Amino acid sequence: MSDTASARFDRFLRWRCALAEPPLEVDFALSGLEEGHVDAMRPRLTAALEAMQALEGGAIANPDEGRMVGHYWLRAPELAPEPEMGQAIREALAQVKALAADVHSGAIAPPEGGRFRHAVLVGIGGSALGPMLVADALGAAESALSVTAIDNTDPDGIDRTLARLGSLREVMVLVTSKSGSTPETRNGMLEVQHACRQQGLDFAKRAIAITQEGSALAQRADAEGWIARFPMWDWVGGRTSELSAVGLLPAALHGVDVDAMLAGARAVDAATREPDPRHNPAALLALWWHAQSNGRGERAMVVLPYKDRLLLLSRYLQQLVMESLGKQLDRKGKTVHQGLTVYGNKGSTDQHAYVQQLRDGRPDFFAVFVRELRDRDGPSIEVEEGATSGDFLHGFLLGTRAALAEVKRTSVTITVPRLDAGAMGGLIALFERAVGLYGELVDINAYHQPGVEAGKRAAKVVLELQARVVAALGASPQLCTAIAGAADADPADVWPLLEHLAATRDDVQQRGADPALATFARGA
Amino acid sequence: MSDTASARFDRFLRWRCALAEPPLEVDFALSGLEEGHVDAMRPRLTAALEAMQALEGGAIANPDEGRMVGHYWLRAPELAPEPEMGQAIREALAQVKALAADVHSGAIAPPEGGRFRHAVLVGIGGSALGPMLVADALGAAESALSVTAIDNTDPDGIDRTLARLGSLREVMVLVTSKSGSTPETRNGMLEVQHACRQQGLDFAKRAIAITQEGSALAQRADAEGWIARFPMWDWVGGRTSELSAVGLLPAALHGVDVDAMLAGARAVDAATREPDPRHNPAALLALWWHAQSNGRGERAMVVLPYKDRLLLLSRYLQQLVMESLGKQLDRKGKTVHQGLTVYGNKGSTDQHAYVQQLRDGRPDFFAVFVRELRDRDGPSIEVEEGATSGDFLHGFLLGTRAALAEVKRTSVTITVPRLDAGAMGGLIALFERAVGLYGELVDINAYHQPGVEAGKRAAKVVLELQARVVAALGASPQLCTAIAGAADADPADVWPLLEHLAATRDDVQQRGADPALATFARGA
Repeated sequence: MSDTASARFDRFLRWRCALAEPPLEVDFALSGLEEGHVDAMRPRLTAALEAMQALEGGAIANPDEGRMVGHYWLRAPELAPEPEMGQAIREALAQVKALAADVHSGAIAPPEGGRFRHAVLVGIGGSALGPMLVADALGAAESALSVTAIDNTDPDGIDRTLARLGSLREVMVLVTSKSGSTPETRNGMLEVQHACRQQGLDFAKRAIAITQEGSALAQRADAEGWIARFPMWDWVGGRTSELSAVGLLPAALHGVDVDAMLAGARAVDAATREPDPRHNPAALLALWWHAQSNGRGERAMVVLPYKDRLLLLSRYLQQLVMESLGKQLDRKGKTVHQGLTVYGNKGSTDQHAYVQQLRDGRPDFFAVFVRELRDRDGPSIEVEEGATSGDFLHGFLLGTRAALAEVKRTSVTITVPRLDAGAMGGLIALFERAVGLYGELVDINAYHQPGVEAGKRAAKVVLELQARVVAALGASPQLCTAIAGAADADPADVWPLLEHLAATRDDVQQRGADPALATFARGA
Repeated sequence: MSDTASARFDRFLRWRCALAEPPLEVDFALSGLEEGHVDAMRPRLTAALEAMQALEGGAIANPDEGRMVGHYWLRAPELAPEPEMGQAIREALAQVKALAADVHSGAIAPPEGGRFRHAVLVGIGGSALGPMLVADALGAAESALSVTAIDNTDPDGIDRTLARLGSLREVMVLVTSKSGSTPETRNGMLEVQHACRQQGLDFAKRAIAITQEGSALAQRADAEGWIARFPMWDWVGGRTSELSAVGLLPAALHGVDVDAMLAGARAVDAATREPDPRHNPAALLALWWHAQSNGRGERAMVVLPYKDRLLLLSRYLQQLVMESLGKQLDRKGKTVHQGLTVYGNKGSTDQHAYVQQLRDGRPDFFAVFVRELRDRDGPSIEVEEGATSGDFLHGFLLGTRAALAEVKRTSVTITVPRLDAGAMGGLIALFERAVGLYGELVDINAYHQPGVEAGKRAAKVVLELQARVVAALGASPQLCTAIAGAADADPADVWPLLEHLAATRDDVQQRGADPALATFARGA
């Protein structure tokens, strides 16, 4: 063995952070991190870890919304600052397990007879990304109930999902909206309700609400007599709600061991409270992001799980990371335009897509590899002498990692022996903590999302304008500019509405395609 | 109307590029482009358009591989520089349509009886991304055959796909590999062949190969008597192969009007040969990318179709754009580390994920909105007075676009009245041309992928090392360092192989988890 050789192994031994339970290793050997980075940042990391401790203790860590940030209590209810909160968490978990057991046993069943075999989750953002990741990662062909999401207000998309399910007789509907007033979710719910009605099925008797007490959705569920209602709390954000009823209920219905998922998260929470950042994988992740992106998000994080069932991990992390860190102002009110871009799909598939650019192109990223040691359940054939499909998959991961290291693109590798419920809970907790710590390092509020409101407000203005445009349409054909004049609006805003109205409403007629010359009229 | 108001409409009228057939509009009003940009770049754009003309005329546009670049001929065979090439394109198209007709009619059917109802596509990268995009975008519940992909060498992923299909009796298998030696595809084929054998089904009589003449895959298909074999040519790259048999065959089996798809691409090809860049949407796209990214890929392109069925567009464009443009060297051999990062999923879903960062965070991107004027087939319910789910979806697009424009994040909007086969062909052609033109502007070879080879070579080294590691394992337990010594390798490279072998092979035993102390042995 040459010295160089053992130096690499020594570095691996020094820079791997391993947990015994759930078994999970985060290997920083190729991260580019050195002791000097940790030492230089140690005071700030210590402060960040203390801030997280305060957050877990019930501080108003989201001051803009005047809220506590309590997703860590979901897997350790005894840590909740008020006993009633811990009690509410325990009760919700018991309610989740009881309901899933009743559905599996048939005690809760469609009023029209038979069994519930499918769950349609109506929700968007944090109400869908975690549940869909878990369903895809932990689902099996023999899962108790299939889980599908309606995660948009796209009529065509809703029709496709419902057509694939066919009859809704054996379908239960989970409507998830923390605020209870998310328009996409409300619309999806009304569309499914309409489809049930058309099929002569009772919507309320197959519907479950997951929402905050007193919300419009809660009131509707109570008034209409839905099967059940599960709580959400203002101290759990949408993007960290996977381990609340939002994620636990669909997972339990699907047949996932939710206790193991919670235990995995709880164990990683404990491990990532470690005060010495050198032995805290979440602290090292946050430090790595900071070092690689100059504390300004100057590089993107590419997420490369070599496992089909983790395809949705990158979408989940896109929300968790980008919605948390993509902020205009820091906590002092200074304009900083922070962020950390996340993208990726899966290996080795992506090697045949954008890995060309990762290897040869702009050095504007760092990579997270995710590796499961298990290949499959059951034996494998040899595809070449001495090698299986899984050996190839594993070889491509190691090969790509080496090819990137060769050109000084850094990476971290997360390894789990088996991607089970515990590992999934652990992965979620690891990234939640890393995002929280990074938010502290760059001094931003990682728990609000003021920019999301801007698009919502603008959409509201559009729908109000649409009403004025419809009112301005008459029996005689008019130009866009004339209609805009009558609606007191800019024709640049009116034109796309006219086009869409003419394409979707039988009573709106368009003549001509040129925006300067086309006319619109209303009438049968 | 104020002057400002009509100024915005005037700008829209001046900066929209609209095609009549297929109806498709690319709106650059919010792109930030000005006449001055076009004027300054006009000589370079003209040169780029001339280079594309030479490419279409049969120049060796991929000199590193000594190849012509002929994907434009696929939809205009009369343009192929040699009559035999045009003839080969026409024959392959006729063969695609004949085979699809025979499968639909039942003339080609499973040897065990029944009908083919599912097509499993075994392929990766360009052999899967286009076909999956088209299947998802144009598929309907009543599609002739369903199309599923095995696009990886993940044993667990392959098992899941096969388990979902259940019996393979009504399944046909399309094995697509241009070179005929892509390991992931070879492995997937062998796995499916094995599954057929286990189910007592004849693999060859349900298999079709799409590959170059003389490849290992072609030889196998001929020797085993597969149903059919379709050609690939060295002058069509994987990432531009959607309109060859690679994409046309699964589309035709699925029930897509492949003639309309080709006609759409052909029409957009014609429109994007327009010598005046001011009226050429592909030239303006390339110019916009250049202006926004400083000709260096300094900003990412976020792809935001507001339509569930275009979810895969961003993954398709990731390959087309990043594999084409992510290059170390320019054509003069200078190190440039070019690239253009692409990410995105769909709206309005992504508004609840990373749009927070787009609006408030780093100004390191530009956005492409895609809009279909049609909402759904059939009428919509009102979800609020005067508004449908589709009005909301459309309002969210316009609202988000406005919210981004307000903070000077630029965007382009592509509108199609209906996302049909013609529109899909047109979209593909539009981006293919924009990528080609941008490659000219930044003087790189957009048609090779040397970086992909690095990962492949490294993986080969890993598999060779694995064989030596297996050979070095004995009946008595040894440390990783000892095995590495016997295998003449670095223990840092040997450790992950040992871990994986112990996890996947019954005859390899690991004792202990600490890499410094764990021992490995081989024996029953």
